[in-house]
Amino acid sequence: MTDRTAQESFLDDFARLSSFGATAGGGVERLAGSPEHAQLREWLAGRFVAHGFTAHFDAIGNLFGLAELVPGAPFVLFGSHTDSQPLAGRFDGAYGVLTALHAASRVVDDHRRAGSAPTYNIAIVDWFNEEGARFKPSMMGSGVFTGKLTLADALATRDPAGTSVASALRSTAMHGDFTSPPLAAYGEIHIEQGRSMDAAGVTIGAVDATWSAYKYEVVVHGEQGHTGSARMSDRRDALLGAAHLVTAVHDLIEHFEVDELHTSVGEFTVAPNSPVTIAREVRLLADLRAETTGLLDEAFAHLESRIAEIEQRTRTRIEIVSRSVWRSGPFLQGGIRLIERSAAAHGFSQGRVKTLAGHDATNMKDMIPTLLAFIPSVDGISHNEREFSTDADMLAGLSVFEDVVRELSTNGMPE
Amino acid sequence: MTDRTAQESFLDDFARLSSFGATAGGGVERLAGSPEHAQLREWLAGRFVAHGFTAHFDAIGNLFGLAELVPGAPFVLFGSHTDSQPLAGRFDGAYGVLTALHAASRVVDDHRRAGSAPTYNIAIVDWFNEEGARFKPSMMGSGVFTGKLTLADALATRDPAGTSVASALRSTAMHGDFTSPPLAAYGEIHIEQGRSMDAAGVTIGAVDATWSAYKYEVVVHGEQGHTGSARMSDRRDALLGAAHLVTAVHDLIEHFEVDELHTSVGEFTVAPNSPVTIAREVRLLADLRAETTGLLDEAFAHLESRIAEIEQRTRTRIEIVSRSVWRSGPFLQGGIRLIERSAAAHGFSQGRVKTLAGHDATNMKDMIPTLLAFIPSVDGISHNEREFSTDADMLAGLSVFEDVVRELSTNGMPE
Repeated sequence: MTDRTAQESFLDDFARLSSFGATAGGGVERLAGSPEHAQLREWLAGRFVAHGFTAHFDAIGNLFGLAELVPGAPFVLFGSHTDSQPLAGRFDGAYGVLTALHAASRVVDDHRRAGSAPTYNIAIVDWFNEEGARFKPSMMGSGVFTGKLTLADALATRDPAGTSVASALRSTAMHGDFTSPPLAAYGEIHIEQGRSMDAAGVTIGAVDATWSAYKYEVVVHGEQGHTGSARMSDRRDALLGAAHLVTAVHDLIEHFEVDELHTSVGEFTVAPNSPVTIAREVRLLADLRAETTGLLDEAFAHLESRIAEIEQRTRTRIEIVSRSVWRSGPFLQGGIRLIERSAAAHGFSQGRVKTLAGHDATNMKDMIPTLLAFIPSVDGISHNEREFSTDADMLAGLSVFEDVVRELSTNGMPE
Repeated sequence: MTDRTAQESFLDDFARLSSFGATAGGGVERLAGSPEHAQLREWLAGRFVAHGFTAHFDAIGNLFGLAELVPGAPFVLFGSHTDSQPLAGRFDGAYGVLTALHAASRVVDDHRRAGSAPTYNIAIVDWFNEEGARFKPSMMGSGVFTGKLTLADALATRDPAGTSVASALRSTAMHGDFTSPPLAAYGEIHIEQGRSMDAAGVTIGAVDATWSAYKYEVVVHGEQGHTGSARMSDRRDALLGAAHLVTAVHDLIEHFEVDELHTSVGEFTVAPNSPVTIAREVRLLADLRAETTGLLDEAFAHLESRIAEIEQRTRTRIEIVSRSVWRSGPFLQGGIRLIERSAAAHGFSQGRVKTLAGHDATNMKDMIPTLLAFIPSVDGISHNEREFSTDADMLAGLSVFEDVVRELSTNGMPE
């Protein structure tokens, strides 16, 4: 168990971390590459150094802290992200970065005090733009790091105001030329963002699989006209077509069992968006998530037939501009059992959970041995200022994650 | 009939006028108070002066041209507007301003050449912000002029980027301290923006009534959450509620005969509008239009019961923040017959039409005797770059409007 001084130091740092971009509603707003995000990372890089790590930015704005205890040996890496959605909670991502820092620094300090060395060197990371709220796609920093997205494409991405990632990184001094040494394993801890652990009274979750997700970028094409004078039967109203599409995406869940399929439209932009003009175009992002891609394929087949109906009914054209697929996949049994063993040793209640949200660990697990642990979110509320996890749960996660760092740096990912 | 030189001069000016804010698609984009709009009005004020009028801005950015032929006598006023929707047509409003200028200058020139005088002085106007695309509400300049909106409220209105009307007028030098002399009548000519005249082969329309309109500003309240991990049954998705509302507003027409009711949602803004966050709020503007307020009341009663269903079904709260009412009303028989007499004398086909769109004349007719004439819109297309009226129809309108200016300035509005 992490001792009381260490616990207080963690909670002090968490309070300080939560002050960057703090909102009146008790949450935070730190869009990737914003001034608030830059201020936080300047502070965080200072904390890395104070805890005995060297701090480095790479070209896509990932912030690394390195403690090289065994010259030339591969590293094990731990982290999460500090950017947020608009009007978001203070736990999402930030909890994992701070836990990685405190857990890793305890292990590093122990070695330095004892004059001992682990098998692997220890690094921590704050990934750039996990949220994708300002710059799409989400999980950008880990996407570039794992080669799923090219650096050039990521840097060229623009926010709705036209600012590119390259320009945002330059103006906030969030980039550098760091390139990673070889990595042996990656570990991340995060809040659940769902209610299953909170409902079941589980303190520590070992994530055993990610859900699959299909993400669609859709353009509904209509024709501009006057909202007052155009005959109803002549209109080709892109907003009406898009509204039918939003309800159709939602109603896909009726073809499946409860909680088997999650669907949503989160981004929805109307042009020209003028009070007396019929919309010529709506751009929207729809996503479908389920445990298997088979179920998603079935859901999409239903959606396709609905799209044809909607086009005919509203005289609009619905174009699927792009589809991205996150494939589900299991996490390694060795990582799951390591989390479970540690939780049991501390006497914390535990369970296996699936992650329905994407995480940087979802990218990393396709590259190197990776584990992901969860602590509960009260009432499952997330991407909301009312997102909450208790101090007790945060500290339980910190204790488990210290064991994780110790084990991975000593033995690598267990079989 | 306006002579050939005068016709060519009109068409030349119309081509020049269409070049301000011209778009690649053959339309214009001149949002109220934009640089393109300011450039046009600088040119237009010059044309006023070249045609023998003095040019003046009032405090809300209406641009007036005065020809005082009878010192101290009241004025008759003619005009329309030059601001546009985004990616709009080049005829809407602009045609009426230029026709007012050319028709009025012909009458003024005739008097000056003959040394004669009309009964009333002659003025022309380019109203500020008829469209309401950038600053709400629409018909702002004539609204302030007729006392339907206070100057202070209008100046304080902000566009989505936070710029106030006061600031836009200041930065484009579009304001002044002009106050209007007493007015005896107002006349306006406009494109129909609907297809009834084009379909019936009518060249000159005498507008006999405006439709009524109810305009609602609505906020759909939901709760932010994670699109991936929140359980479907826990979500309070403002976008889903708003999508149901858009289809419900549309489906109101099914309670009525074809073409009795027009409904639409033109503006629709989602917060936070992030790919992986459930919308906490959607703000939208809905409008219902029909000939009578009785029919609109009946339509709204249907909508209210649908709103209750949607709130329950989507766990959102739908708040009607404001309702504005444009009451229908007839235009004066004397004005209608004046337009008809002139069209008949020129041998143009003619008919009575209703205006479903609002116009500055709709405001003016509640203050002083007002007439409104229409020329056809090909296929009824409007608020669209493909909006089109033929040269022949524009020139027919110019001939009729010259008669209108001559009659109103000599005898006032006929009984």
